[in-house]
Amino acid sequence: MKYFEDFAPGQVYALGTRRVTAEDIVAFATRYDPQPFHVDEAAAGASMFGGLVASGWHTSAIFMGLLAATIKRERWASLGAPGIDRCRWTQPVRPGDTLQGSIEVLETRPSRTRPFGLVRTRSRLTNQDGGQVLEIEGTGLYALTPQAGEAAPA
Amino acid sequence: MKYFEDFAPGQVYALGTRRVTAEDIVAFATRYDPQPFHVDEAAAGASMFGGLVASGWHTSAIFMGLLAATIKRERWASLGAPGIDRCRWTQPVRPGDTLQGSIEVLETRPSRTRPFGLVRTRSRLTNQDGGQVLEIEGTGLYALTPQAGEAAPA
Repeated sequence: MKYFEDFAPGQVYALGTRRVTAEDIVAFATRYDPQPFHVDEAAAGASMFGGLVASGWHTSAIFMGLLAATIKRERWASLGAPGIDRCRWTQPVRPGDTLQGSIEVLETRPSRTRPFGLVRTRSRLTNQDGGQVLEIEGTGLYALTPQAGEAAPA
Repeated sequence: MKYFEDFAPGQVYALGTRRVTAEDIVAFATRYDPQPFHVDEAAAGASMFGGLVASGWHTSAIFMGLLAATIKRERWASLGAPGIDRCRWTQPVRPGDTLQGSIEVLETRPSRTRPFGLVRTRSRLTNQDGGQVLEIEGTGLYALTPQAGEAAPA
């Protein structure tokens, strides 16, 4: 397991990649963000985007998918997050894009009142051309390293 | 149509309601945030949440769905958004919750360089008990009122 104490400012972790299809874009947006430029090829072509683009919330959810897979694969002792401090959809995500994620540790501090630590991070998604499509700053909660005699979290 | 000039600080708009089921929670999380407390009833029961809870990104996407429906129903001249400035998942969303949305205008200003206006807002989702589950601050882009002789946006 990777506990709170194992994180330090300056660390950067690769989160892997995910390819985005037109079907993905339309399926997410139909349910959660049915604005014309997310669900309708023709209307999107006539919009300022010039074609179908993913909802920013879809792009954010794809980032979360990559982070969750990393948490599981590398056994990070994540306890969730209270929210995010800043999120920018810096460039459109289009059908066929392959997005690559990374997360950088900015700051770590133990909670003053609760038995976990806070890890502040800046995360990015970039596309196959190196263009940044997403930047998120936020704070995650992580379990502390168990002391001798304590059980580790499941 | 409701254009940039029609928004003013202090306005609050109701965004309607949406009921969240266990199936919704698991379906979203399976694809985008498969942490145990979002996808596995038994693991969620043993977690600090004491039961299945929605991914924060799912809660945010539900808010976007209510906003997008309002934009369409009330014909707001929305041009999308560059991101969000702050997002807090202030209380868990659980199966059976009915979430109610609202959006409050904090500030409006025309873009200095582009032909649209910026509307800064604070949005909230509350559950059927009045508990706030989501708070988001961000800025949306809205088309300007067409001048005489100009075509309105589609």
